[in-house]
Amino acid sequence: MVATHIFRQLYEPVSSTYTYLLADLTTKEALIIDPVIETAERDAKLIQQLGLKLRYAINTHVHADHVTGSGKLKKLLPGCKSVLSNQSGGKADVYVEDGEFIKIGESGKTPLVIESRATPGHTNGCTSFVWHDYGAVFTGDAVLIRGCGRTDFQQGSADKLYTSIQTKIFTLPDHYLVYPAHDYTGQTCSSILEEKTHNPRLTKSREAFIEIMNNLKLDYPKQIDKALPANIICGLQGEI
Amino acid sequence: MVATHIFRQLYEPVSSTYTYLLADLTTKEALIIDPVIETAERDAKLIQQLGLKLRYAINTHVHADHVTGSGKLKKLLPGCKSVLSNQSGGKADVYVEDGEFIKIGESGKTPLVIESRATPGHTNGCTSFVWHDYGAVFTGDAVLIRGCGRTDFQQGSADKLYTSIQTKIFTLPDHYLVYPAHDYTGQTCSSILEEKTHNPRLTKSREAFIEIMNNLKLDYPKQIDKALPANIICGLQGEI
Repeated sequence: MVATHIFRQLYEPVSSTYTYLLADLTTKEALIIDPVIETAERDAKLIQQLGLKLRYAINTHVHADHVTGSGKLKKLLPGCKSVLSNQSGGKADVYVEDGEFIKIGESGKTPLVIESRATPGHTNGCTSFVWHDYGAVFTGDAVLIRGCGRTDFQQGSADKLYTSIQTKIFTLPDHYLVYPAHDYTGQTCSSILEEKTHNPRLTKSREAFIEIMNNLKLDYPKQIDKALPANIICGLQGEI
Repeated sequence: MVATHIFRQLYEPVSSTYTYLLADLTTKEALIIDPVIETAERDAKLIQQLGLKLRYAINTHVHADHVTGSGKLKKLLPGCKSVLSNQSGGKADVYVEDGEFIKIGESGKTPLVIESRATPGHTNGCTSFVWHDYGAVFTGDAVLIRGCGRTDFQQGSADKLYTSIQTKIFTLPDHYLVYPAHDYTGQTCSSILEEKTHNPRLTKSREAFIEIMNNLKLDYPKQIDKALPANIICGLQGEI
């Protein structure tokens, strides 16, 4: 089997963030999901070495724990457009809504298509992106491996998150791989079946889930005061 | 496409080691490559949650930078056999030689087969494992992403490593993915074509490569005095 696409998972260790690079090999068009400003140069170098043209830098949401690399990537790789949900409250070149498709490589033989699914709860603008041809979903901070995003700031709502996960993510086929925006235990991916079966929060009833989420007593995120104002404008002052 | 196998890349952050879990979904038989003692319990829990039977814990070589998890996994998951190269000088339940195949899931519809390729140079017993059906090679410390293993101790030989990589790894198809035992830059995999094209050491002549490797002036590995004696006996005193 000769590959028709490139798929790379990349890691930023300070905020434990996963960034994903997807590309169509016929047209060499690429998109990146959840880049981080500290690793934007690494990512730009890889994109250039692979001979790719970066069309979209997508954020699953306005992050509170790191500054997005979208703005820096736009500077390093002109032609790239930033993408955010139309419910996010942030600025971007392209706004996506629930159910919309993002396509790259349309002029080639094997266009790469990802579906946007609005999955609010961690924030109002949280979006998961489903790559059906590969059998994968990029869940941002909605579903994490054996966990989920916190719901105690940025319009967070445990009730909304439960609905999002049950109706928009756990309705995907069991074998779809789950690629989150973060992991803190050295795991790189999971599957829908695994999270439906073994996620200690998401195997609970709605009421029990809300009870857990409202009593996590987490620390205030270290980078939030820097990250939120920057991420609202896609990472760089004066850039959208 | 419904999956016929499970493939998971796992990370141990102190030694920046990648561990790989491969399983056949019909028979639920699994093997693990380069487990680390500190994360053996995490790995055992995942294997149990996935309902897998671990048949082999394979080390690509006798590591100097971390203690293998093989011995601990054998205790946690009885029935698992440790595997090392017959050239490694270490003890194991099963010794593999160049060109031999390791198979799991043989009683099922989709046996999972990996080919052992002797790739000495970092150590005498270094072996790479090729998963042809997936299009991937687990290179241990032979090829790293844009780098390679050091050759200044443990029978290291830059000349041997160059021969191993050119004849046993770079002869694989260009699209095969390269999964190393370590990465220190947040990258999770590469491809044969990428390393043939962009690896700053391996795009050099044999003479230039040897010159580079003999002048790296690296620190003595932090864990070597603990790791080597332990790894010679697969990680746990009294276990093989």
